[in-house]
Amino acid sequence: MTLLLKKETLAPALEFLNSLGHSKLRNPLHNYLRVEVQEGLLKLGAASDEVDGEAALRGEPGGFSFGPVLVPGRLLTEVVSAAPGEEVELSFEEAGVRVTSGRFQSRLAAATPDGFPDLHLLDPENPGAFHTLSLPPEPLREALLQVRYAVSKESYRGVFTGVQLEFREGGFRAVASDGYRLALREVEAPVGVTRKVVLRAPAVDRLVQALRGVEAPLRVGLAEGLVGVVLEAGFGLLRLGLRAMEGEYPDYERVIPKEFIARFRAETAPLKDALRRLLAVADSQNHRVDLLLEEGRLVLEAEGPYGQAREELEVWREGSPISLALDARYLLEALGPAAREVEVGFSGPISPALVRPAEGGGYRAVVVPLKVG
Amino acid sequence: MTLLLKKETLAPALEFLNSLGHSKLRNPLHNYLRVEVQEGLLKLGAASDEVDGEAALRGEPGGFSFGPVLVPGRLLTEVVSAAPGEEVELSFEEAGVRVTSGRFQSRLAAATPDGFPDLHLLDPENPGAFHTLSLPPEPLREALLQVRYAVSKESYRGVFTGVQLEFREGGFRAVASDGYRLALREVEAPVGVTRKVVLRAPAVDRLVQALRGVEAPLRVGLAEGLVGVVLEAGFGLLRLGLRAMEGEYPDYERVIPKEFIARFRAETAPLKDALRRLLAVADSQNHRVDLLLEEGRLVLEAEGPYGQAREELEVWREGSPISLALDARYLLEALGPAAREVEVGFSGPISPALVRPAEGGGYRAVVVPLKVG
Repeated sequence: MTLLLKKETLAPALEFLNSLGHSKLRNPLHNYLRVEVQEGLLKLGAASDEVDGEAALRGEPGGFSFGPVLVPGRLLTEVVSAAPGEEVELSFEEAGVRVTSGRFQSRLAAATPDGFPDLHLLDPENPGAFHTLSLPPEPLREALLQVRYAVSKESYRGVFTGVQLEFREGGFRAVASDGYRLALREVEAPVGVTRKVVLRAPAVDRLVQALRGVEAPLRVGLAEGLVGVVLEAGFGLLRLGLRAMEGEYPDYERVIPKEFIARFRAETAPLKDALRRLLAVADSQNHRVDLLLEEGRLVLEAEGPYGQAREELEVWREGSPISLALDARYLLEALGPAAREVEVGFSGPISPALVRPAEGGGYRAVVVPLKVG
Repeated sequence: MTLLLKKETLAPALEFLNSLGHSKLRNPLHNYLRVEVQEGLLKLGAASDEVDGEAALRGEPGGFSFGPVLVPGRLLTEVVSAAPGEEVELSFEEAGVRVTSGRFQSRLAAATPDGFPDLHLLDPENPGAFHTLSLPPEPLREALLQVRYAVSKESYRGVFTGVQLEFREGGFRAVASDGYRLALREVEAPVGVTRKVVLRAPAVDRLVQALRGVEAPLRVGLAEGLVGVVLEAGFGLLRLGLRAMEGEYPDYERVIPKEFIARFRAETAPLKDALRRLLAVADSQNHRVDLLLEEGRLVLEAEGPYGQAREELEVWREGSPISLALDARYLLEALGPAAREVEVGFSGPISPALVRPAEGGGYRAVVVPLKVG
């Protein structure tokens, strides 16, 4: 029983599935891939604590079924990725799975699938009792990437360790916050479902990775504690089951400033460069940078234990002169998704500041000034 | 007192000197750079356990002297490397060193040089009681890079944690070994001194880095426990003091096979690729790969706890059929410096094998077969 596959589809499918596990030490079976053939369709399954995945790849010839068996994931991935030929032949035998390509061949031991966890996946053909929706892949990927930085790295911070996706009739929003800053991105799309769900950061990262280069809309199913995704990846159909967190973000709308006493516009790149220079000198604990906005210029100052630094930028500005202190790292990260020009609005010296691209778009970020005494 | 320097010379000088220290935790002063101006010549000094360095850069205008003072090395490097302009102005003041570039300026605190270690450098203008020689920079750099991999990573292995440089009348040799394999590279050059010296791996790495792009011959001084190097770096004159290890390599010539019962020639790239594939499957402890050389082909086989693999390569061969086992990682590393085609000679199934580029050149490597059975 032999299935012939293109290396250029099999290798990336294996590489993706093999990267899912962030829990390999906790459950040794997460090191294995479940391999199964159904009428010439190769199904590869991977389990982890955050995300389960299954890829379905068409091989030649069809007409037989095999498995499931378990094959060591890293080993199968390395052997296929390093295969010398453009095609890879998988032979399913008593003793294991034989991989042949050119003058190279390898036989990998296969284990029985006993004990392998049930994959948490939603069957797109059988939507049953969950909400389904269709999402545009590239805007979703961009939205997740743009807010990802604001997720808390402290595991005790609960929902703030995840990205909240908010679905509504005519679009969706991705939000992330660690309690000190917040990033959000609006996307318009015919979603048709009202629902909130929080995905843990590792699941977000895997989804972002899976969405790369995907063109067809993805189908999403929302069940209790689980977001199921079905997408047309380059290598074939990919199903993902992303575990959702319990709870949702507290009301954050109230920290987004709506009125401003001052604002400025500047080119993003020189502002980022200036902040990086000041960060080198700034206090390494609070990364404090003082901003003074007045008459067409923004003055940035920092002081640390070994020195001080100052830089002036010419900016367009409006409103009253204002001075305040910010965490330069937070401001830098908030500027990340603002492409060419950025607008920063201040609601007061100790009230939240709002960062958004001057050219518009659905990205906004809130940075809370440092309390200075 | 202000000195104007080009950022493109000052930044790389600082980056190099700041990278010298591998002992910053042991001696906090190794975090500082010694900064001094002598008649417009900026001298930057760095100390570490393995290598000391001093760069001399010409600034404008000349005519004054200052210092020495100590400035935090990472901070000065970051501030200058991130400077917005093409020129950087250093002002030497009571309170510290002021760095100005475009609309950015920073003042860094300066400390007194008390307690800063004396730099172990040889003065090239005053050779005194040490041997001096002149070496071609690129062949030295290449020789060190080619043998570097074979140095032992185990600190208890004494001289095997360093690279031995052997100088003789008409050339020099770089040798490295960890006791299981050996790499050497011959270079012909008018050296004129007979002497052996062992440099610790971190000193070798810094020297390799410093030699990059250097064109003029470097002057080398050999003193007790110290190799002094003076070279024309892109940014100005650089003096390095590389601490030498005590002792020298035991006689290794006897392990280099001179007679062979079989040998083969193969293209290097496909052989490396095949070894990498086999390594994926091989035992992760000893990385054993079995080689069978017979009638125009080389058969490679590996077996690990999760499977086995086999590959055949067509090769030119001579001598009797032979089979033996090698550590695939060692063979791969030995093949590294063999550019296009490689020749491997076997002196017996459990005697050392010799690897060398088929096209000649001064590189040779010895790999000892694994004991099997």
